[in-house]
Order: sequence, then C-alpha cells, then structure tokens
Amino acid sequence: MKIDGKPYRSIWHDAAGTVQIIDQRWLPHELRIVPLQSRAEFAVAIRDMWVRGAPLIGAAAAWGMAVQMEHDASDASLAETWQVLHETRPTAINLRWALNEMRSLLTPLPPSQRAAAARRRAIEICDEDVEINRRIGENGLAIIRQIAARKNGRVNILTHCNAGWLATVDWGTATSPIYHALAAGIDVHVFVDETRPRNQGAQLTAWEMNHHGVSHDLIVDNAGGHLMQHGEVDMVIVGTDRTTSQGDVCNKIGTYLKALAAHANGVPFYVALPSPTIDWTVKDGVKEIPIEERTGAEVTHVQGRDAQGKVGLVQISPDGTPARNPAFDVTPAHLVTGLITERGVCSANTTAMAAMFPDLQG
Amino acid sequence: MKIDGKPYRSIWHDAAGTVQIIDQRWLPHELRIVPLQSRAEFAVAIRDMWVRGAPLIGAAAAWGMAVQMEHDASDASLAETWQVLHETRPTAINLRWALNEMRSLLTPLPPSQRAAAARRRAIEICDEDVEINRRIGENGLAIIRQIAARKNGRVNILTHCNAGWLATVDWGTATSPIYHALAAGIDVHVFVDETRPRNQGAQLTAWEMNHHGVSHDLIVDNAGGHLMQHGEVDMVIVGTDRTTSQGDVCNKIGTYLKALAAHANGVPFYVALPSPTIDWTVKDGVKEIPIEERTGAEVTHVQGRDAQGKVGLVQISPDGTPARNPAFDVTPAHLVTGLITERGVCSANTTAMAAMFPDLQG
Repeated sequence: MKIDGKPYRSIWHDAAGTVQIIDQRWLPHELRIVPLQSRAEFAVAIRDMWVRGAPLIGAAAAWGMAVQMEHDASDASLAETWQVLHETRPTAINLRWALNEMRSLLTPLPPSQRAAAARRRAIEICDEDVEINRRIGENGLAIIRQIAARKNGRVNILTHCNAGWLATVDWGTATSPIYHALAAGIDVHVFVDETRPRNQGAQLTAWEMNHHGVSHDLIVDNAGGHLMQHGEVDMVIVGTDRTTSQGDVCNKIGTYLKALAAHANGVPFYVALPSPTIDWTVKDGVKEIPIEERTGAEVTHVQGRDAQGKVGLVQISPDGTPARNPAFDVTPAHLVTGLITERGVCSANTTAMAAMFPDLQG
Repeated sequence: MKIDGKPYRSIWHDAAGTVQIIDQRWLPHELRIVPLQSRAEFAVAIRDMWVRGAPLIGAAAAWGMAVQMEHDASDASLAETWQVLHETRPTAINLRWALNEMRSLLTPLPPSQRAAAARRRAIEICDEDVEINRRIGENGLAIIRQIAARKNGRVNILTHCNAGWLATVDWGTATSPIYHALAAGIDVHVFVDETRPRNQGAQLTAWEMNHHGVSHDLIVDNAGGHLMQHGEVDMVIVGTDRTTSQGDVCNKIGTYLKALAAHANGVPFYVALPSPTIDWTVKDGVKEIPIEERTGAEVTHVQGRDAQGKVGLVQISPDGTPARNPAFDVTPAHLVTGLITERGVCSANTTAMAAMFPDLQG
C-alpha cells in the first residue's frame, strides 16, 4: 500500500535485485528501509521481528533461502539454510511452509540452477500472497458495499491488532477490504484497537492508516463495546492466526471480547483469512488450541517515544508486580458472522467451510 | 489498608491535627505523603488529582472546608470555599454532596463555633465512608465464602480499574470484600485489569495488592475473556461511578466487555457500591447517561517510569494519530449478578433495589 502517496510492499527486490524490507521495530516513530544480503541477515530480521506477520515471515524465509543459494547452492547449504531459518521462529506455520516449498523445489535441481529457480519462486511466493490478499479484499469489499448502500453514509469498521499490509507482502488480510473500499470511493472510517500488550494496533495499524490516508481513530481496547452499544460500529473485521475446521478463530488476545460485544449489539463480526491459515486438524478451538503465555514484562512495560524523541520502554506498574500474559484467545464460531477468504465469504461452520474448501479439508 | 505492614488511610489527620494525604500522582513508583494546610492546597490536590476516587474527593473537600474555617470562619469565607472547592472537579457528585453537607451544618452556627464543628464533621464523613466500605466488605465476603466452600480452593477474582482503598478513605468498594476475605483466611487471588487509558489498575490496584500482601496478577484489559473462558476466574467485582434505579452500571470504560464475558461464561459479576452512588433519577443507563469523552492524548500516550527511573509519558502511536476516548461505559442490569451494598446484596433490578432502599428511591 502507500506511504505518503508512494506504493510499497513490506518486502521487495530493488532494481539491482537486492531484497529490501521495512525494519518494523522502529515503527511508528521512524521508517527505516534496510537491505538483507545474507542468510545471517535474514535470520536476524526474522528472529528479532524486523519483519513479523505470518505471510511476511514466510516470504522473508523464501527470500532468505534464495539469497543463500546465490552464495552457496550445495546440498549442505540447502539443508543448513532450512535449519537456520526455521529456528528463527519455530512455531510460525508459514515459515515452515515456505521453507519446505523452497526445499522441495530446489532439492531435485542441480546446484547450478538453484539460485535462479529459488529467486523465481521467492518472487512467486510474494506475488501469490499479494494475490490472495487482493481477493480477500474484493470479497470483503462486497460486504462493505452492502453496508454502505444500506446506511447511505460512512461505514465504521473496528479492527484489532495488525492484520495489515505490514503483516503480509501487501494489502493485509483484515485491512484489505478497507483499502479496497477506500479505492472504490466508499466513505470508510476505522476504529483501531491499540491491542495491548504489544500495541500492534497503535504502532502499526494506525501507522498504515495514517500514511495510506484512511480515516481512523485509535481507541483503547476497552472502548469497542461502548462504541458498538451506541451504534458507532457497523462491522468488525479481524485477522486470525489459526481457524479451526468448525470456524473457531484463534487471534490476538482480546479478539474474543470484541466478538462478544459485536454479537450482543448485532454488529457483524468478520474474520479475514487466507485459506492456508485454516487448521483442518483442529475442531474445537477453545478446548484444543494451546495458548502461548508470553513474558509478563510485556504487560508491566510499554514501548513508546519519550519527550526527547527517544524510543524505549516505561514500566507502568509497581516494582515486582506479577503478570499473566496469554497472547491469543479463541472466538467460538457462533460469534463469527462470516469468514472472508480468497475464494469468497463463507459461514463459520463445518458444513460451509467444507463446501468452500472441498480440496483442502483433512 | 496496609502499606508494607503499616495501616494507612488515604486521608487522615496526624497527632498535631494536620491533614495528610498520599499524593497519588507518584504511585506506583513512589509513596509521597504530603500535608494539606490551606484551602488553596486542598483545591490543587483535588483539581490535579493528587487525590481521586469519588469518596476520597468528598472527604478531602470536607477537610478543605474545615481547614479554611480555622483560618477564616466568616459567611463570605464559607460561601467562597464552597465555590472554590466545587470548581476543582465540578462533575464529582460526592464533592458537591460533602460541600453541601458542610455548608448546611456550618451556616446556622456562629463563626466562632464553625472551625470545631467543621473538623468534627470532616472526621465523621471520613469515618462514615470507612464504615460503609467495611459493610460492603462483609457483605461481599459472604459471597466469596460460598465460592470458596464450593470450590474448596483458591478463589480467583477479577477486578477492573481502581475501586480500592486509595479511591475511598479505607477498604475501597470492590476491593473491600477481597481484603475481608484475606483477613478471614480465604485463599484469594486477584486478576488486576490494567485499565487503559489511565492504567489505574496497573498503577493503583496492583500497588494496593502488592503492599497489603494480596496475591495478584496484572493482566491487560484484553485478557479477561480468555481467562473466564478457561475457568480461571471465579467472580468479577467492580466498582461503579453511578448505578441507575433499574441496576444499569456506569463504570470505567471496559467494564461492559468484562460483564459480557462473565455472562457468556457463567462467571458471577458483582458490583460493589455505597448506596449514595445510586442515581434514582435515571432508569435506562445506556440511553440516559451521557458519557464523558476525554482527551485523545490519554490514548496516544502512556505514563510510566523509564530505565533511568524518571516518570513521564511516552507516545505509543504515530505523530498526529487521532483518537477517541470515551471514559466510561454502561453495563446493562441483565449482565449484573448482584449489587454488593452496605445494606446487603441485592439483584440489579428495580423491584429488588426499591425493596432494599425504600427510604432512598426518588
């Protein structure tokens, strides 16, 4: 999407063929674009979250493999690169998928052909992600159009966390319908949940909206229920880390509370997802999905820029305060109005999902 | 309650008769106790939120009037003091109540008797608040006892914002049952919502629990739904700024989301309140109570202590991010399991409330 009028992706190769990324650790306070030129640089960028978001991590891993093939295309190098890059974020599904994809393609090839083939496939993986998200956007746009027509006015959309273009190669998932609606001339306004503890909404989604030119308001995570109660939200769109075969949605902590409020107030609650994030091996998300507990330091401390312009952490609670920090929650399918996928919009239940993805279900 | 073993109130007079308060602006990072010795000092302390919380504001105003009477007990001084102190927080109901109470008492008296009478009444107002909260605690304790007996184990209580002893003269409202349970030897554990945007949970409730010695975990406001979904919360107790005659509860923004989650997961949701916070003139809280919108700067900035030990604000969002900041929300009565008052526990509906407060209803 655009940064102050200029189109960007979150990862790209420049005219010289060098891979460039936005080092997202500095957002929203600074836009730093850095080249990644070795496997080691890719590993650090993924591990230390210069890039984050499942699709972008996958794309970065594919590019990491491709760049390494240009240095050393041996079998040993291929095996080692899979290992080194996989270890950076071992629980990231897309990372493993992209690395497997590259390894399957490259293993049968003679080393002399691997660099060129790897580069072609990395470019393809990026383009495929963009295309999936573009389709999610078109499918979500149809829903926004209906709301706009019914309301005959501004459409207010609440989103949680960052399922934006910064988490993918372009468009984002939850944000793609919003960017499409803006491009279609629909008057959209976005309520951006700040999304404690890591504040991806305040840091990334607000930044995206700001620089692309989408009307928005940042809100605390506590505010969405009140806004829905007073008719100020027309729909909710969130992303997901993992959706089960019956349509339960595992997403950033706090998503469930917004789904409850949407349900109680008759506000449609949509989840935007590329079909690979559906986990057909899991049915009951609340019972079956283990929820990562992260360090309490994320709760007791907040990152921001101080009055002197320095970005750092401040401690908000007393010394020695214990904290619990579940990172995700599960929204049961009955609270989900629909799943916006690259194939179309379907209901969040076993039958509808199986009908839309007959080729994918396990 | 106690600070590291020593009993405190949030406002008290020392052996010399001087009024002392905890300057709460420095919590949780520093405990600063300051004397207030003139009307001007009381006015600043109330206006700039050195003291906060409805009951404590009322108590401070009563003391401010009393201290001024010791300097100048004339009719003009009485009228001017009412005005000066009232202007510090004009929407605070308890402030106006306490000032009216003092004025009604003092006006008929000759100026020579006003100082002593005012001091007596200020002490009484403080003691009355303590007694109300003590009774709320006893009544809430009965509920906690039942849960403890049924579970035969630790009782996990979630609370939002700070309805603690720092917001009252002592005990607090929502925290009073917790402090009583601890004193009764019940194994209680408190989940403390950080309560963005102003983080009263992280700054004040966590500090209270910490220094009194109550087992607790700080959590982000997003986490409560997930914890309830997984049976980790046995009850919710919150305070309230205003409760309507049909039992709708206006409280700090985000309370409503927790009430929805409690309802969806069969977790009892209690509201602790002194009866004067019931507004018998209002019935439908969602429709009738206007919600204060505060500055967006509270959303875009967070206060904390940096690595150098300096307390200040950091900006979490991009420059120029617009924000919405509703300060309160309304939890409809049907989500409230019961109201814990100084007279007993009653259901949140017109009939039950009228039966418990036949003398108060409008």
